[in-house]
Order: sequence, then C-alpha cells, then structure tokens
Amino acid sequence: MSKGRLEAFSDGVLAIIITIMVLELRPPEGSSFEALKPLMPKFISYVLSFVYIGIYWNNHHHLFHAVNHVNGKILWCNTLLLFCISLVSFATAWMGENHFVAAPVALYGIVLLMCGISYWLLVKALLRHHGKDSLLAASIGNDFKGKISIIIYILGVLISFYNSWISMGLYTVVALIWFIPDTRIEKRIEKEI
Amino acid sequence: MSKGRLEAFSDGVLAIIITIMVLELRPPEGSSFEALKPLMPKFISYVLSFVYIGIYWNNHHHLFHAVNHVNGKILWCNTLLLFCISLVSFATAWMGENHFVAAPVALYGIVLLMCGISYWLLVKALLRHHGKDSLLAASIGNDFKGKISIIIYILGVLISFYNSWISMGLYTVVALIWFIPDTRIEKRIEKEI
Amino acid sequence: MSKGRLEAFSDGVLAIIITIMVLELRPPEGSSFEALKPLMPKFISYVLSFVYIGIYWNNHHHLFHAVNHVNGKILWCNTLLLFCISLVSFATAWMGENHFVAAPVALYGIVLLMCGISYWLLVKALLRHHGKDSLLAASIGNDFKGKISIIIYILGVLISFYNSWISMGLYTVVALIWFIPDTRIEKRIEKEI
Amino acid sequence: MSKGRLEAFSDGVLAIIITIMVLELRPPEGSSFEALKPLMPKFISYVLSFVYIGIYWNNHHHLFHAVNHVNGKILWCNTLLLFCISLVSFATAWMGENHFVAAPVALYGIVLLMCGISYWLLVKALLRHHGKDSLLAASIGNDFKGKISIIIYILGVLISFYNSWISMGLYTVVALIWFIPDTRIEKRIEKEI
Repeated sequence: MSKGRLEAFSDGVLAIIITIMVLELRPPEGSSFEALKPLMPKFISYVLSFVYIGIYWNNHHHLFHAVNHVNGKILWCNTLLLFCISLVSFATAWMGENHFVAAPVALYGIVLLMCGISYWLLVKALLRHHGKDSLLAASIGNDFKGKISIIIYILGVLISFYNSWISMGLYTVVALIWFIPDTRIEKRIEKEI
Repeated sequence: MSKGRLEAFSDGVLAIIITIMVLELRPPEGSSFEALKPLMPKFISYVLSFVYIGIYWNNHHHLFHAVNHVNGKILWCNTLLLFCISLVSFATAWMGENHFVAAPVALYGIVLLMCGISYWLLVKALLRHHGKDSLLAASIGNDFKGKISIIIYILGVLISFYNSWISMGLYTVVALIWFIPDTRIEKRIEKEI
Repeated sequence: MSKGRLEAFSDGVLAIIITIMVLELRPPEGSSFEALKPLMPKFISYVLSFVYIGIYWNNHHHLFHAVNHVNGKILWCNTLLLFCISLVSFATAWMGENHFVAAPVALYGIVLLMCGISYWLLVKALLRHHGKDSLLAASIGNDFKGKISIIIYILGVLISFYNSWISMGLYTVVALIWFIPDTRIEKRIEKEI
Repeated sequence: MSKGRLEAFSDGVLAIIITIMVLELRPPEGSSFEALKPLMPKFISYVLSFVYIGIYWNNHHHLFHAVNHVNGKILWCNTLLLFCISLVSFATAWMGENHFVAAPVALYGIVLLMCGISYWLLVKALLRHHGKDSLLAASIGNDFKGKISIIIYILGVLISFYNSWISMGLYTVVALIWFIPDTRIEKRIEKEI
C-alpha cells in the first residue's frame, strides 16, 4: 500500500491542530496594549505547542521519507499518534487559562508523554515492516532523542506537583533537543539516496 | 476522470471533522484533576468518534486503492458520505453533553447508520463503474462487515430507548469489528498487484 | 506554472468551509428528540449550503481537469471565488438563525450571486489563457447553466422581500440544475482524452 | 529532501488560517440589513487579511516553484512563517472588534512585519541552499517589493498612534503592491523552463 494518502491525511490533521490552537487566543475586551497582558500565558502555551507540533510534523516528514510502503497496523499507529497530538490543543488551552499551575502542567506533560510513546509505537511498526537492514532502520539508529524525551516528560510530570515552572523548563529542553537539526541523519539519507 | 482530487478532498474533510471534535473538549473552570472529571463523557464520545472516523478514512483509503477512475455519480456518493460523517461531530457533541441518555445515543446510532448506508451506496456506484470482474470487486467480496454493521446499528438505535449503555456497547463492537485488520484483503491486493 | 498547488489549496479551503458550517449546529439544551426541533432551520440551511459547496468543488474539479497551466490572474480569480464561497458559511448561519425571513434569504442569494460571478470570471480567465480552440473551451461550451443560475439568483434576491420561501425554492432549483450530472460534457472529455 | 510535503503542509495551514477568520463574522442578532452594519469593521478586516494571506500563498507558490530541494533549516523557517501568519487571524479579530483604534492597528502592523521578516528569512535560507546562480536567485532578484513592504509596515505601526486610518491606508498600499502581478518574473520563469 502506498504512503501518499497517509502523509496527506497526517499533514491535514497536523495542519488543523496547529492552527485551531490560535482560536484560543480570543481578542481581549479592551483596545490598549495593556489588555493583551492577561493573554501572555495563553500565548506562551501556544508558542510551545506550535513548536512541538511543528517538531512532530518535521519528524513525521523525515520518518516517512525513508518509508516505502505501509500496512494496516502502521495506519492505526499513525491514527493513535494523531489522536494524542489532538489532545495537545486541549492541554494547551487548559494550561494557558490556568497560568501554569500544577495539574494542567502535569496533564500537558502526560499528553506529550502519550505522543512520545505513540510515536515510538509507530516507529516500531515501521521497523518491523521494513526490516533491520533497511534505510529506515539506519536513519533512525538507536533513537536516543526519543528515549531521552520520554524520560524528561516523566520527570516533568512528577516535578510539576512541586514546582510547575521547572516542568515547563524541562518541556522546553525537549523541544530544543528536537529543534536543533539532526544533520547527521540528514547527511546519511543524502549519501545513501 | 482521475481519483486524485477526490481523495485529496475527502482526506481534507475527514481530517477536519476528526479534529474539530476536540474543540468540544472545552478546558474546565477549575485547575485541579477533579475539574476534568465532568469531561469524561465528552472524552469517551470523542474517543469513540475518533476511532469511527479513523475507520472510515482507513476503509476509504483501502477502497480507493483499487479504484482506477471515477464519474459524476461516484463524486456525489462520496459527497453524501462526507455529509453523513460531518454529522458525527454534532451527534458526538450532543451525546457527550447529555451523559449517554436515550435520545442522543439513538441519534448517534442513526448517524452511524446513515454513514454505513452512504458508504454502501458509494461501494455500489464504484462496483457498477468498474465491473464485477475488477480487482475492486474481488477486494470487496461479499462485504460481510458492512452488512453486519448496519444490522448492529439498527439494533443499537432500537435498544437505546431501553438501555443506552447496551447501545454504546454495540457501537463499540462495530468499531472493534472494523478495527481488527482485515489481513485477508490486504494480502489479496498485494498478490494481485 | 503547474495547477497542482492551486487545486490543493482550493481543495483545502473548500473542505474547511464545507465542514466548519457544521459547527453552527450547536447541540441543543435538552436531551430529547423534541429539543432538536428548533435546529431544523439551521439543519436545512446546512444541507443546502453543503450541496452548493459540493457542487462548486465538483465543478472546480471538472473545470481544472481540462486545464494545463495557470497564471497570476487565474490564481487571483480563484482566490476571489474562494473568498465568496467562504461568505456562504456566514450567510448560512444568519439564515438558519432567523428562520428564512427576508433579509437573510436575500443576503444568501447575493452571496450565491457573487460566487456565480466570480466563477464566471475564473472561467473567462482560464479561457483567455488556453484559447478558443482548446479542450477547455470545448468542454465548457456556451455555459448555459452558469448563465441561467445567475438570472435565477437575481430573481431569488428580488423575490425574497415578498416571499422568502419562493426564493428558497429558486435556490434549490439552481442546486438541482447543477446536481443532475452533465453526462454530455463527461463523455466529450472522455472521448477527446 | 523533496518539497512536496512542505508545500502540502503549508497549503493546509494557510487554507485553515484564511478560512477560520470567517468564524469571527458571527451572524448578528437582528434579521434586517441594518443589523449587518456593526459587522462592517470586522468585514473590512476580514477582506484585508484574506487578501494578505492570499498574497502569501501566492508568493509561497511562486517561490517554491523554483525550489528543487529543502533542508531542516528551510523547514523551520517555513514553520516560523506559518506561525506569524497564524497570528494574523488574532490581530484581525482584535482590530475588527475595536473599530480600527490605535493599539489593534499597530499590532496588526507588527504581525504583518513579523510575517514579512520571516518570509525574508525563508527566502535567505532557500538562497543559501540553492546558490547565487540558481534559477531561484534569478527569479527573486533584488526583492524590491519585500524591502519596501517592511519599511511601509514600520511606518504604519509608528503612524497608528497618531492616525490609525493612515496606517490602514499604508497596509492597503502594500497589499496592492503585491496584488499587481509581477509579470516580469513570471515571464522570466517561463523563458528559462
């Protein structure tokens, strides 16, 4: 089965999730710059989630670049990933409205953890379908970033009940880890193609 | 006429329907995990509908995989299917707000029934266009799953007035029937291509 | 310039417009079937607009099927068409909330008229780019349907101030004119390709 | 890496942003044409923003037409551009609700400025990847329009605190500069391909 429509559907869902979050940024009552101040927590949440979903789209793009064909299991792992990412918009809205207090920050971390785990399930399903000697397996490697992210998410969730700002810092660290382009992989793909 | 744009338009509409349902999950007033509890019925409705629309996308993907060309009638059957699926988001919202009482659960079943019937019309229009000896006809077979689903939907609607939880169970059974990958068909397509 | 992205962007915008209209169908307060009754005008408006936007997508699909390349002017005519169609969702919401009284029904007709005119501008821009002897020109022919639609829209707007139900009937007639598949054109395209 | 999915994702996001702005046009309370009057500022804001996002899509289309391949940096510059454009919908809503008073008009200009700068960063990243002798570099030229736009945006922001209508005029001028098709570039691309 070809991967074209899976990519198109995923692009569509990710494009919508990344965009509807801006609907939470309701225009404030007043018409002065002061009136924008209370929106700051929502804006910060929006920026962080936009970066995260941008990272997932980016990684999805990279991952399927080396994929040749898909099966039913891969389709469902992908749907699970999209479901988890759709919850990011809910967690973002709750966190933004409650100025980063404990429970919403913990939920945000739990949702990110679910996204991380479902992404890992998707990678595993793809690897089983393509084999250990495939270009895909080579380009994924030992997936150090994926593993360390999941550990940091768990830390972030646990710490949020003591100090939610440390958790926010940890979530930002994960975003930065992924944001920094993994040129090593890119070069490898370029070489082999 | 090529099937490319029909697939793209359907992917777009399904991606939007599956995603806007998350907008019903409004962040609660409080900032504790307790505050999330009243959202549970909405969340369960969301999960069920996400799975259903995921199944329709999945089946649509499989169905059009074996399609070569489309005509005006097929375009309109497809539009009818998309219309019925768009009503899933409405039925989901009503059911989630009313904690699975009779009428909303019945409406949910009616909408699923309409989706099932319009999918069946689409399949019929495709079969008439491709002929009985086509790969498409072979891959669809006797469409046992489609027929049993429609019977269970009707049962679910009728039973909802006595006990709406049994109806919810029946709707879940249909989702599971489709969820379990129909590897037989996949293998057949792979063999013939 | 290739037509691929213009088609993709148009598919995206039309898919969103056709889908966000369902957001107007807010779940009612009660949980009985009675509670759905006041939604009927909104539902009827939704059905009519869904059919109209389905028709525009369908026609857009047919039109660009015979198009080879696009220029800046065509891109802008297409953007104007998408803008006018986006107003359909607004007019639908207003009409649905006001039970088909004069002004909303007139506005609905005005918006349909704007869509019809901008579609006609798009066709003209495409014809100028492709020449009178092109397959495109042959497949469009004298565009009888387009002309008669515009006349009926104007009638509908004028009559709405006397009896808005006659206007609704006229809008439905136009939808039916387009709905009935124009097999003559389809066959012509098939023959020439 | 191929540019296909970047184009698809950008088309999706731009299609959603351009369309969700119409959700701000809430149907008014009354059912007479008078009732539409208070919506005029929102409608004007919508038209201006629709034209702007149409221009960005148009330019994006032109820009990537001459692009052969993309890298991680280009993906992120593109994501930044999409983020900035997503804020246009927020700024539009605030401006439309406050009848073009100083702060919202200034913010609108600031958002346009951010879009302009991020577009310029995207162009620079593309040029570095393709080289100074590429068709891309030739088709962009000295980017006079881009530079003059940024100057006018800054002027518009500054002037908005004295007279916000002059700012609105300036923003309209920028839109017109881009709206007028740059046939010189189109011809050049046509010649070289």
